[in-house]
Amino acid sequence: MVKRSLPLPKVYGLLEPGPVLLLSTSHKGRANVMTLSWHTLLEFEPPLVGCVVSENDFSFSALRLTRQCVLNIPTLEMATQVVGCGNNSGRSVDKFATFGLTPQPASLVDAPLIVQCHANLECQVVDLRLMKRYNFFVLEVLKAWVDPSVKDPRTLHHRGYGRFMVAGETITLPSKMR
Amino acid sequence: MVKRSLPLPKVYGLLEPGPVLLLSTSHKGRANVMTLSWHTLLEFEPPLVGCVVSENDFSFSALRLTRQCVLNIPTLEMATQVVGCGNNSGRSVDKFATFGLTPQPASLVDAPLIVQCHANLECQVVDLRLMKRYNFFVLEVLKAWVDPSVKDPRTLHHRGYGRFMVAGETITLPSKMR
Repeated sequence: MVKRSLPLPKVYGLLEPGPVLLLSTSHKGRANVMTLSWHTLLEFEPPLVGCVVSENDFSFSALRLTRQCVLNIPTLEMATQVVGCGNNSGRSVDKFATFGLTPQPASLVDAPLIVQCHANLECQVVDLRLMKRYNFFVLEVLKAWVDPSVKDPRTLHHRGYGRFMVAGETITLPSKMR
Repeated sequence: MVKRSLPLPKVYGLLEPGPVLLLSTSHKGRANVMTLSWHTLLEFEPPLVGCVVSENDFSFSALRLTRQCVLNIPTLEMATQVVGCGNNSGRSVDKFATFGLTPQPASLVDAPLIVQCHANLECQVVDLRLMKRYNFFVLEVLKAWVDPSVKDPRTLHHRGYGRFMVAGETITLPSKMR
């Protein structure tokens, strides 16, 4: 798939519906990826995203020390990889190799984009004030990539213990809400 | 609909998929409700939720001063009310009356449950450290109510400017992830 750059003020529309994400990092030359559902928008412009990465996750120290990551948005056809990344630790598994994920260099951060995901957000950590108490990181999206052929992505939405709601139809209502 | 109390460790499954919420407050005897999409889980037990309520929202001062609210989860049949609550301000409109929402007293907080929503979470503000910078409130869920007849709620997921993804099918994959 050929991706194009998405204007940063439009990033919120990708994350607001609450999709499962794959967060990728690179630390000391080692790439890793984890599955993540606890995230929220914090600001439209520049796009700020808050997310929880547990100190038990192998990605925690990579994110804390490099302060860089990519938020990749997977869709239904990647469900097996999403679950695989969530049930294994980068301590013992090379998840890119094991789950057939293709890394691609990002433009502004030292963490890989996942080619198979329809959208990729290059992020920098900008606030760690709630890290100790809640493992909560504030990220600024520096660069966003999307596959323009995907209009209504069939994103996955975790309900717990292997149950995922798959994004259904899109409806349009008269609304001024951004 | 008759609701039952939901054990607090199960609350996360309601919010993780990222549904639009209706946040209700009561301040000086005046109830209000706003539409909200920027929220995330922060902890399983007790359930902690972070959410953004803009200082431009009429609900902001009610939430800041009373430190209590209810997070109500609407579904597809409430789409008109969700948009109405998002496009009007409680400064000039009684949203409960205007949009036909039925308030019901909560058990532990002084803010109304919305009867038409399939789930209601009574919440207390527990951390304001990121309020000034990001309008970010940390809430603890004290009591949760669900309609047990609703198994796979057709929640609404905002994509911007009146476009909502409606929750689709639920799939189950082998996973140990909570």
